Amino acid sequence: MDADLIALLPPARERRLARGEALFRAGDPALGLVVVRSGALELVRTSREGRRSVLHRAAPGDTFAEASLFEPRHHCDAVAAAPSVVAVHPAAELRRAASTDPALAWRVAAHLAARLVAERARAERLALPHAADRLLDALHALPAEEGGARRLGGTWKALASELGLTHEATYRALARLERAGLLRREGRGVVHLGVRARA
Amino acid sequence: MDADLIALLPPARERRLARGEALFRAGDPALGLVVVRSGALELVRTSREGRRSVLHRAAPGDTFAEASLFEPRHHCDAVAAAPSVVAVHPAAELRRAASTDPALAWRVAAHLAARLVAERARAERLALPHAADRLLDALHALPAEEGGARRLGGTWKALASELGLTHEATYRALARLERAGLLRREGRGVVHLGVRARA
Repeated sequence: MDADLIALLPPARERRLARGEALFRAGDPALGLVVVRSGALELVRTSREGRRSVLHRAAPGDTFAEASLFEPRHHCDAVAAAPSVVAVHPAAELRRAASTDPALAWRVAAHLAARLVAERARAERLALPHAADRLLDALHALPAEEGGARRLGGTWKALASELGLTHEATYRALARLERAGLLRREGRGVVHLGVRARA
Repeated sequence: MDADLIALLPPARERRLARGEALFRAGDPALGLVVVRSGALELVRTSREGRRSVLHRAAPGDTFAEASLFEPRHHCDAVAAAPSVVAVHPAAELRRAASTDPALAWRVAAHLAARLVAERARAERLALPHAADRLLDALHALPAEEGGARRLGGTWKALASELGLTHEATYRALARLERAGLLRREGRGVVHLGVRARA
Protein backbone atom coordinates (compact mmCIF):
# COMPACT_ATOMS: atom_id res chain seq x y z
CA MET A 1 0.00 0.00 0.00
CA ASP A 2 1.52 3.29 -1.08
CA ALA A 3 -0.37 5.52 1.38
CA ASP A 4 1.65 8.62 0.39
CA LEU A 5 0.49 8.23 -3.18
CA ILE A 6 -3.10 7.30 -2.40
CA ALA A 7 -3.49 10.39 -0.17
CA LEU A 8 -2.64 12.63 -3.14
CA LEU A 9 -4.87 10.93 -5.73
CA PRO A 10 -8.12 12.39 -7.03
CA PRO A 11 -11.23 10.51 -5.83
CA ALA A 12 -11.67 6.90 -6.93
CA ARG A 13 -14.66 5.03 -8.29
CA GLU A 14 -15.46 1.84 -6.46
CA ARG A 15 -16.12 -1.35 -8.44
CA ARG A 16 -17.42 -4.63 -7.04
CA LEU A 17 -16.49 -7.81 -8.88
CA ALA A 18 -17.84 -11.34 -8.62
CA ARG A 19 -15.36 -14.22 -8.68
CA GLY A 20 -14.18 -14.72 -12.27
CA GLU A 21 -15.38 -11.29 -13.40
CA ALA A 22 -12.90 -9.20 -15.41
CA LEU A 23 -12.14 -5.60 -14.44
CA PHE A 24 -10.48 -5.19 -17.84
CA ARG A 25 -9.20 -7.31 -20.71
CA ALA A 26 -6.06 -6.90 -22.84
CA GLY A 27 -6.86 -4.34 -25.54
CA ASP A 28 -9.45 -2.46 -23.46
CA PRO A 29 -8.91 1.30 -23.09
CA ALA A 30 -6.74 2.01 -20.02
CA LEU A 31 -8.89 2.48 -16.92
CA GLY A 32 -6.35 4.02 -14.60
CA LEU A 33 -4.61 3.19 -11.35
CA VAL A 34 -6.37 0.41 -9.41
CA VAL A 35 -6.16 -0.22 -5.65
CA VAL A 36 -7.49 -3.53 -4.31
CA ARG A 37 -9.72 -2.91 -1.27
CA SER A 38 -10.77 -6.52 -0.64
CA GLY A 39 -10.57 -9.89 -2.37
CA ALA A 40 -7.85 -10.62 -4.93
CA LEU A 41 -7.28 -9.90 -8.61
CA GLU A 42 -5.10 -11.85 -10.99
CA LEU A 43 -3.30 -10.21 -13.89
CA VAL A 44 -3.32 -12.74 -16.69
CA ARG A 45 -1.51 -12.74 -20.01
CA THR A 46 -2.12 -14.99 -22.99
CA SER A 47 1.06 -15.90 -24.92
CA ARG A 48 1.46 -16.09 -28.72
CA GLU A 49 0.83 -19.83 -28.37
CA GLY A 50 -2.39 -19.28 -26.40
CA ARG A 51 -0.93 -20.28 -23.04
CA ARG A 52 -2.45 -18.26 -20.17
CA SER A 53 -0.19 -17.32 -17.27
CA VAL A 54 -0.79 -15.36 -14.09
CA LEU A 55 1.67 -12.46 -14.00
CA HIS A 56 0.71 -11.21 -10.60
CA ARG A 57 -1.88 -11.69 -7.90
CA ALA A 58 -2.91 -8.40 -6.25
CA ALA A 59 -4.06 -8.58 -2.62
CA PRO A 60 -5.85 -5.94 -0.50
CA GLY A 61 -3.76 -2.75 -0.36
CA ASP A 62 -1.91 -3.57 -3.59
CA THR A 63 -2.03 -1.20 -6.55
CA PHE A 64 -1.80 -2.29 -10.15
CA ALA A 65 -2.13 -1.08 -13.75
CA GLU A 66 0.04 1.96 -13.00
CA ALA A 67 1.69 1.70 -16.42
CA SER A 68 -1.76 2.17 -17.99
CA LEU A 69 -1.60 5.86 -16.98
CA PHE A 70 0.87 6.29 -19.84
CA GLU A 71 -0.54 3.91 -22.42
CA PRO A 72 -3.84 3.94 -24.26
CA ARG A 73 -4.72 0.25 -23.66
CA HIS A 74 -4.21 -2.58 -21.20
CA HIS A 75 -1.78 -5.37 -22.09
CA CYS A 76 -3.23 -8.09 -19.86
CA ASP A 77 -6.52 -9.18 -18.29
CA ALA A 78 -7.40 -8.35 -14.68
CA VAL A 79 -9.77 -10.98 -13.30
CA ALA A 80 -11.22 -11.32 -9.79
CA ALA A 81 -9.91 -14.53 -8.17
CA ALA A 82 -12.47 -14.05 -5.35
CA PRO A 83 -15.35 -11.61 -4.75
CA SER A 84 -13.48 -8.29 -4.71
CA VAL A 85 -13.81 -4.55 -4.27
CA VAL A 86 -11.40 -2.24 -6.09
CA ALA A 87 -10.92 1.53 -6.24
CA VAL A 88 -10.25 2.83 -9.75
CA HIS A 89 -8.49 6.21 -10.04
CA PRO A 90 -9.37 7.15 -13.63
CA ALA A 91 -6.34 7.75 -15.89
CA ALA A 92 -7.62 10.98 -17.49
CA GLU A 93 -8.43 12.62 -14.15
CA LEU A 94 -5.14 11.53 -12.66
CA ARG A 95 -3.20 12.91 -15.64
CA ARG A 96 -5.12 16.19 -15.42
CA ALA A 97 -4.45 16.52 -11.68
CA ALA A 98 -0.74 15.71 -12.15
CA SER A 99 -0.37 18.33 -14.88
CA THR A 100 -0.75 21.10 -12.28
CA ASP A 101 0.49 19.29 -9.17
CA PRO A 102 4.21 18.44 -9.32
CA ALA A 103 4.06 16.69 -5.90
CA LEU A 104 1.44 14.26 -7.23
CA ALA A 105 3.37 13.70 -10.48
CA TRP A 106 6.60 13.05 -8.56
CA ARG A 107 4.80 10.71 -6.16
CA VAL A 108 3.52 8.68 -9.14
CA ALA A 109 7.12 8.54 -10.40
CA ALA A 110 8.37 7.37 -6.96
CA HIS A 111 5.69 4.68 -6.90
CA LEU A 112 6.73 3.47 -10.35
CA ALA A 113 10.40 3.47 -9.32
CA ALA A 114 9.56 1.20 -6.35
CA ARG A 115 7.63 -1.14 -8.66
CA LEU A 116 10.57 -1.16 -11.07
CA VAL A 117 13.01 -2.13 -8.30
CA ALA A 118 10.67 -4.95 -7.19
CA GLU A 119 10.20 -6.18 -10.76
CA ARG A 120 13.96 -6.18 -11.33
CA ALA A 121 14.49 -8.23 -8.20
CA ARG A 122 11.92 -10.69 -9.54
CA ALA A 123 13.68 -10.89 -12.91
CA GLU A 124 17.04 -11.42 -11.21
CA ARG A 125 15.60 -14.26 -9.19
CA LEU A 126 14.11 -15.83 -12.30
CA ALA A 127 17.50 -15.61 -14.01
CA LEU A 128 19.01 -17.98 -11.43
CA PRO A 129 19.45 -21.22 -13.39
CA HIS A 130 18.86 -23.61 -10.45
CA ALA A 131 15.44 -24.18 -8.87
CA ALA A 132 16.92 -24.39 -5.36
CA ASP A 133 18.61 -20.97 -5.73
CA ARG A 134 15.40 -19.36 -6.97
CA LEU A 135 13.44 -20.87 -4.14
CA LEU A 136 15.93 -19.83 -1.44
CA ASP A 137 16.12 -16.32 -2.86
CA ALA A 138 12.31 -16.00 -2.83
CA LEU A 139 12.07 -17.38 0.72
CA HIS A 140 14.81 -15.05 1.99
CA ALA A 141 12.80 -12.13 0.58
CA LEU A 142 9.78 -12.98 2.79
CA PRO A 143 9.60 -11.03 6.06
CA ALA A 144 10.86 -13.10 9.02
CA GLU A 145 8.40 -13.46 11.89
CA GLU A 146 9.41 -13.66 15.54
CA GLY A 147 11.44 -16.83 15.99
CA GLY A 148 12.59 -16.57 12.34
CA ALA A 149 9.65 -18.34 10.68
CA ARG A 150 8.75 -17.24 7.16
CA ARG A 151 5.21 -17.68 5.96
CA LEU A 152 4.25 -18.13 2.30
CA GLY A 153 1.53 -15.69 1.23
CA GLY A 154 -0.11 -18.43 -0.88
CA THR A 155 0.50 -22.06 -1.75
CA TRP A 156 3.74 -23.76 -2.83
CA LYS A 157 2.03 -24.26 -6.16
CA ALA A 158 1.49 -20.49 -6.53
CA LEU A 159 5.11 -19.81 -5.56
CA ALA A 160 6.31 -22.41 -8.08
CA SER A 161 4.36 -20.70 -10.84
CA GLU A 162 5.70 -17.26 -9.78
CA LEU A 163 9.23 -18.69 -10.01
CA GLY A 164 8.74 -20.29 -13.42
CA LEU A 165 9.11 -23.79 -11.96
CA THR A 166 6.99 -26.91 -12.18
CA HIS A 167 5.56 -28.17 -8.85
CA GLU A 168 7.72 -31.26 -9.21
CA ALA A 169 10.92 -29.23 -9.54
CA THR A 170 9.84 -27.11 -6.56
CA TYR A 171 9.19 -30.09 -4.31
CA ARG A 172 12.44 -31.74 -5.36
CA ALA A 173 14.35 -28.52 -4.61
CA LEU A 174 12.60 -28.15 -1.23
CA ALA A 175 13.55 -31.71 -0.27
CA ARG A 176 17.13 -31.13 -1.39
CA LEU A 177 17.41 -27.88 0.61
CA GLU A 178 15.93 -29.61 3.64
CA ARG A 179 18.43 -32.46 3.38
CA ALA A 180 21.27 -29.93 3.06
CA GLY A 181 20.05 -28.26 6.27
CA LEU A 182 19.35 -24.97 4.47
CA LEU A 183 15.68 -24.93 5.43
CA ARG A 184 13.22 -26.69 7.64
CA ARG A 185 9.48 -26.96 6.88
CA GLU A 186 7.12 -26.48 9.78
CA GLY A 187 3.42 -26.98 9.13
CA ARG A 188 1.58 -25.54 6.12
CA GLY A 189 3.55 -22.96 4.20
CA VAL A 190 5.91 -22.09 7.06
CA VAL A 191 9.68 -22.49 6.77
CA HIS A 192 12.79 -21.69 8.80
CA LEU A 193 15.86 -20.76 6.78
CA GLY A 194 19.56 -21.28 7.29
CA VAL A 195 19.21 -24.09 9.80
CA ARG A 196 22.43 -25.63 8.48
CA ALA A 197 22.21 -28.80 10.62
CA ARG A 198 25.76 -30.06 10.28
CA ALA A 199 25.12 -33.20 12.34
CA MET B 1 16.79 6.91 -25.84
CA ASP B 2 13.98 8.84 -24.21
CA ALA B 3 14.49 12.12 -26.07
CA ASP B 4 11.30 13.65 -24.61
CA LEU B 5 12.69 13.18 -21.13
CA ILE B 6 16.26 14.20 -21.91
CA ALA B 7 15.05 17.49 -23.46
CA LEU B 8 13.38 18.43 -20.16
CA LEU B 9 16.26 17.50 -17.85
CA PRO B 10 18.52 20.03 -16.13
CA PRO B 11 22.11 20.07 -17.51
CA ALA B 12 24.22 16.95 -17.12
CA ARG B 13 27.81 16.49 -16.02
CA GLU B 14 29.91 14.47 -18.39
CA ARG B 15 32.09 11.67 -17.04
CA ARG B 16 34.71 9.71 -18.97
CA LEU B 17 35.45 6.18 -17.83
CA ALA B 18 38.29 3.82 -18.69
CA ARG B 19 37.45 0.16 -19.34
CA GLY B 20 36.85 -1.51 -15.96
CA GLU B 21 36.34 1.80 -14.13
CA ALA B 22 33.27 2.04 -11.89
CA LEU B 23 30.86 4.97 -12.18
CA PHE B 24 29.37 3.90 -8.84
CA ARG B 25 29.36 0.91 -6.51
CA ALA B 26 26.50 -0.63 -4.50
CA GLY B 27 26.15 1.42 -1.32
CA ASP B 28 27.46 4.65 -2.86
CA PRO B 29 25.20 7.72 -2.51
CA ALA B 30 22.80 7.92 -5.48
CA LEU B 31 24.32 9.93 -8.33
CA GLY B 32 21.24 10.52 -10.44
CA LEU B 33 19.94 9.60 -13.85
CA VAL B 34 22.69 8.42 -16.22
CA VAL B 35 22.62 8.51 -20.03
CA VAL B 36 25.28 6.55 -21.94
CA ARG B 37 26.82 8.71 -24.67
CA SER B 38 29.41 6.22 -25.94
CA GLY B 39 30.87 2.89 -24.91
CA ALA B 40 28.94 0.48 -22.67
CA LEU B 41 28.29 0.14 -18.96
CA GLU B 42 27.39 -3.04 -17.12
CA LEU B 43 25.21 -3.03 -14.03
CA VAL B 44 26.54 -5.74 -11.80
CA ARG B 45 25.12 -7.22 -8.63
CA THR B 46 26.88 -9.45 -6.11
CA SER B 47 24.61 -12.09 -4.54
CA ARG B 48 24.54 -13.18 -0.88
CA GLU B 49 26.85 -16.02 -1.91
CA GLY B 50 29.33 -13.66 -3.58
CA ARG B 51 28.33 -14.56 -7.15
CA ARG B 52 28.56 -11.55 -9.50
CA SER B 53 26.00 -11.25 -12.26
CA VAL B 54 25.42 -8.68 -14.98
CA LEU B 55 21.88 -7.31 -14.61
CA HIS B 56 21.98 -5.14 -17.66
CA ARG B 57 24.34 -3.80 -20.28
CA ALA B 58 23.62 -0.18 -21.19
CA ALA B 59 24.54 0.92 -24.73
CA PRO B 60 24.78 4.44 -26.22
CA GLY B 61 21.42 6.24 -25.82
CA ASP B 62 20.33 4.03 -22.91
CA THR B 63 19.48 5.55 -19.54
CA PHE B 64 19.97 3.82 -16.23
CA ALA B 65 19.89 4.31 -12.46
CA GLU B 66 16.51 6.07 -12.71
CA ALA B 67 15.33 4.39 -9.48
CA SER B 68 18.22 6.10 -7.68
CA LEU B 69 16.32 9.41 -7.97
CA PHE B 70 14.08 8.08 -5.20
CA GLU B 71 16.56 6.18 -3.06
CA PRO B 72 19.57 7.39 -1.10
CA ARG B 73 22.03 4.75 -2.36
CA HIS B 74 22.79 2.54 -5.35
CA HIS B 75 22.01 -1.18 -5.14
CA CYS B 76 24.44 -2.39 -7.78
CA ASP B 77 27.77 -1.49 -9.37
CA ALA B 78 28.00 0.35 -12.71
CA VAL B 79 31.25 -0.56 -14.46
CA ALA B 80 32.50 0.52 -17.89
CA ALA B 81 32.78 -2.54 -20.15
CA ALA B 82 34.67 -0.37 -22.68
CA PRO B 83 36.04 3.18 -22.68
CA SER B 84 32.83 5.17 -22.16
CA VAL B 85 31.35 8.63 -21.84
CA VAL B 86 28.21 9.15 -19.74
CA ALA B 87 26.03 12.15 -18.89
CA VAL B 88 25.01 12.26 -15.23
CA HIS B 89 21.89 14.28 -14.36
CA PRO B 90 22.40 14.80 -10.61
CA ALA B 91 19.57 13.47 -8.44
CA ALA B 92 19.25 16.53 -6.18
CA GLU B 93 19.03 18.98 -9.10
CA LEU B 94 16.56 16.78 -10.94
CA ARG B 95 14.34 16.50 -7.84
CA ARG B 96 14.52 20.27 -7.32
CA ALA B 97 13.58 20.96 -10.95
CA ALA B 98 10.71 18.44 -10.82
CA SER B 99 9.28 19.99 -7.65
CA THR B 100 8.20 23.06 -9.64
CA ASP B 101 7.80 21.53 -13.10
CA PRO B 102 4.91 19.05 -13.30
CA ALA B 103 5.69 18.28 -16.97
CA LEU B 104 9.20 17.13 -16.02
CA ALA B 105 7.91 15.11 -13.05
CA TRP B 106 5.29 13.41 -15.24
CA ARG B 107 7.86 12.71 -17.94
CA VAL B 108 10.07 10.98 -15.37
CA ALA B 109 7.03 8.93 -14.33
CA ALA B 110 6.30 8.01 -17.97
CA HIS B 111 9.92 6.95 -18.44
CA LEU B 112 9.74 4.75 -15.34
CA ALA B 113 6.45 3.24 -16.54
CA ALA B 114 8.11 2.25 -19.84
CA ARG B 115 11.03 0.67 -17.94
CA LEU B 116 8.55 -1.18 -15.73
CA VAL B 117 6.72 -2.62 -18.76
CA ALA B 118 10.06 -3.74 -20.27
CA GLU B 119 11.23 -5.27 -16.99
CA ARG B 120 7.94 -7.14 -16.61
CA ALA B 121 8.29 -8.55 -20.11
CA ARG B 122 11.79 -9.72 -19.15
CA ALA B 123 10.50 -11.38 -15.96
CA GLU B 124 7.70 -13.08 -17.91
CA ARG B 125 10.21 -14.44 -20.39
CA LEU B 126 12.42 -15.71 -17.58
CA ALA B 127 9.43 -17.45 -16.02
CA LEU B 128 9.12 -19.70 -19.09
CA PRO B 129 10.37 -23.07 -17.83
CA HIS B 130 11.89 -24.26 -21.14
CA ALA B 131 15.08 -22.82 -22.61
CA ALA B 132 13.72 -23.00 -26.17
CA ASP B 133 10.62 -20.95 -25.22
CA ARG B 134 12.73 -18.27 -23.54
CA LEU B 135 15.04 -18.09 -26.49
CA LEU B 136 12.23 -17.86 -29.06
CA ASP B 137 10.45 -15.20 -27.00
CA ALA B 138 13.65 -13.12 -26.76
CA LEU B 139 14.35 -13.49 -30.50
CA HIS B 140 10.77 -12.54 -31.43
CA ALA B 141 11.22 -9.36 -29.36
CA LEU B 142 14.15 -8.21 -31.53
CA PRO B 143 13.22 -5.80 -34.34
CA ALA B 144 12.96 -7.57 -37.72
CA GLU B 145 15.15 -6.13 -40.45
CA GLU B 146 14.20 -6.03 -44.12
CA GLY B 147 13.92 -9.64 -45.28
CA GLY B 148 12.95 -10.69 -41.75
CA ALA B 149 16.45 -11.14 -40.29
CA ARG B 150 16.91 -10.47 -36.61
CA ARG B 151 20.28 -9.41 -35.33
CA LEU B 152 21.49 -10.07 -31.78
CA GLY B 153 22.80 -6.91 -30.10
CA GLY B 154 25.61 -8.90 -28.47
CA THR B 155 26.87 -12.47 -28.39
CA TRP B 156 24.87 -15.69 -27.84
CA LYS B 157 26.77 -15.95 -24.57
CA ALA B 158 25.48 -12.55 -23.43
CA LEU B 159 21.93 -13.49 -24.47
CA ALA B 160 22.23 -16.78 -22.57
CA SER B 161 23.26 -14.95 -19.42
CA GLU B 162 20.40 -12.44 -19.84
CA LEU B 163 17.99 -15.39 -20.10
CA GLY B 164 19.34 -17.21 -17.04
CA LEU B 165 20.61 -20.08 -19.21
CA THR B 166 23.98 -21.78 -19.49
CA HIS B 167 25.67 -21.52 -22.91
CA GLU B 168 25.26 -25.28 -23.28
CA ALA B 169 21.49 -25.09 -22.73
CA THR B 170 21.30 -22.19 -25.17
CA TYR B 171 23.20 -23.99 -27.93
CA ARG B 172 21.17 -27.17 -27.39
CA ALA B 173 17.93 -25.15 -27.58
CA LEU B 174 19.14 -23.34 -30.73
CA ALA B 175 19.95 -26.64 -32.41
CA ARG B 176 16.58 -28.06 -31.40
CA LEU B 177 14.70 -25.01 -32.74
CA GLU B 178 16.68 -25.18 -35.96
CA ARG B 179 15.86 -28.89 -36.41
CA ALA B 180 12.18 -28.13 -35.75
CA GLY B 181 12.29 -25.47 -38.48
CA LEU B 182 11.43 -22.67 -36.06
CA LEU B 183 14.57 -20.71 -36.77
CA ARG B 184 17.49 -20.60 -39.15
CA ARG B 185 20.90 -19.21 -38.27
CA GLU B 186 22.62 -17.09 -40.88
CA GLY B 187 26.11 -15.87 -40.13
CA ARG B 188 27.20 -14.37 -36.84
CA GLY B 189 24.34 -13.48 -34.55
CA VAL B 190 21.71 -13.30 -37.30
CA VAL B 191 18.60 -15.50 -37.31
CA HIS B 192 15.40 -15.89 -39.29
CA LEU B 193 12.36 -16.96 -37.30
CA GLY B 194 9.32 -19.04 -38.08
CA VAL B 195 10.82 -20.81 -41.08
CA ARG B 196 8.77 -23.92 -40.22
CA ALA B 197 10.39 -26.13 -42.88
CA ARG B 198 7.95 -29.01 -42.89
CA ALA B 199 9.89 -30.96 -45.52
